[in-house]
Amino acid sequence: MLYNFLHEIVVDPGQNTTKPFVTLTYAQSLDGKIAGHGGQQLILSGPESMKATHMLRAMHDGILVGINTVFNDDPRLTARLSNDELPPRCISETGQLRNPALFPELQPKPIILDAQLRFPLSSKLLDQDAPTRPLILTRHDHSPERRRQLELRGATVVGCSTDSQGRLDLFNVVQELSARKIRSLMVEGGASIIKSFLESGLVDLTIVTIAPTFVGQDGVSVIGSAQGLPQLENPTYHTLGRDVVLVAKVHRTASPKQ
Amino acid sequence: MLYNFLHEIVVDPGQNTTKPFVTLTYAQSLDGKIAGHGGQQLILSGPESMKATHMLRAMHDGILVGINTVFNDDPRLTARLSNDELPPRCISETGQLRNPALFPELQPKPIILDAQLRFPLSSKLLDQDAPTRPLILTRHDHSPERRRQLELRGATVVGCSTDSQGRLDLFNVVQELSARKIRSLMVEGGASIIKSFLESGLVDLTIVTIAPTFVGQDGVSVIGSAQGLPQLENPTYHTLGRDVVLVAKVHRTASPKQ
Repeated sequence: MLYNFLHEIVVDPGQNTTKPFVTLTYAQSLDGKIAGHGGQQLILSGPESMKATHMLRAMHDGILVGINTVFNDDPRLTARLSNDELPPRCISETGQLRNPALFPELQPKPIILDAQLRFPLSSKLLDQDAPTRPLILTRHDHSPERRRQLELRGATVVGCSTDSQGRLDLFNVVQELSARKIRSLMVEGGASIIKSFLESGLVDLTIVTIAPTFVGQDGVSVIGSAQGLPQLENPTYHTLGRDVVLVAKVHRTASPKQ
Repeated sequence: MLYNFLHEIVVDPGQNTTKPFVTLTYAQSLDGKIAGHGGQQLILSGPESMKATHMLRAMHDGILVGINTVFNDDPRLTARLSNDELPPRCISETGQLRNPALFPELQPKPIILDAQLRFPLSSKLLDQDAPTRPLILTRHDHSPERRRQLELRGATVVGCSTDSQGRLDLFNVVQELSARKIRSLMVEGGASIIKSFLESGLVDLTIVTIAPTFVGQDGVSVIGSAQGLPQLENPTYHTLGRDVVLVAKVHRTASPKQ
């Protein structure tokens, strides 16, 4: 079956209660670009890879994106699957198929990193079923009025510490998520979020879809300086339509602060 | 078998007598880099992919590299294979295994693009068996003395036309090669040669080895501007050790001048 390899993926933090299992996913061109000139969104991956993304979403407790992705794409961040695509966690012990479309409590929690609490009240995420309203992580000193507006719309707003550049401290982010029973986290984008996670040492598994296209040097790369880049272990490859998907564990170079 | 996909590759220009079948091969990191900072050579691909490269070499009439590769790597550009790795062209009609190591006339011809005829007399290519002495393509107005020195060492020197920037005209290059019975050409590098061929519209088949590593933004990309980049058709993927190999036809955007 096309997606059998997904069923072999285990997203479980084990005994670790300070961070979830973190899966980093992105789609890139052959020349390593995830967006076009100026961050322009590109449809890189084919329908088979898109379906795999939805299956992966259904395997995780939370899906994390940056606020720019909310502004650019206005995503729903839900798993939209047919019944024959459901992962084991969506099948009850008695064999009942529990499609997240009908059981929203099985949807992954949308998680947004939004240091300055710019989250738009027009976002589709605020109109969804209660379990899929967003969890927004922001600076401790965000605007109380904005927070109140978002909470009235069903969002959860959580304060986090920031680094010297005012960005959310990812170690604190994953701690806060662990405290809220997010035991598996899928990081989807955009470019700066992927880059920050790749360099953080917090990623357990990388799933990169490579599309057989060239974008050119004006495109956006996720990979920055050579420092802090992770080493990949035990890579496996899976052809999905015109794309190939790399699944690799990440050699951990750092641990979350205690 | 690990390398079965190579036997399905047909490198044949058919009735085209103005250009050889052109296979472009390179190895890149996941983030699309083929060399490190300042062009530093990197061992990106694993031993299985390296073996595939030698098998591919034995399938072609010629291997083309730029003069910078000669200076940087001092390569032999020969196919070094064990008997169980030989492609069909190295097996006679009676089943005799003709290893190019023992039948140098079955080796691909080393072809060097060297507009300014800087080819070093110390190159290993000048010490090989006669069939694997280099074919050097250079400007029409190169130094006659340098040419004589190289020819005394067994090289063949061929004059080609140049473009407005003084680079060899690739359309003329492939015409000259066709005239010398090079019906299949493997283009191996370096970065500027790969880029020029990719943008020339002369490539028939692209074979890209992707290694599961990150090099970072200081590395050398082969892909330049978004203009003139080819579209890839019918991609297939083949896992070789830790690497994955993409094989794809190139949608032709230009034809050699008549």
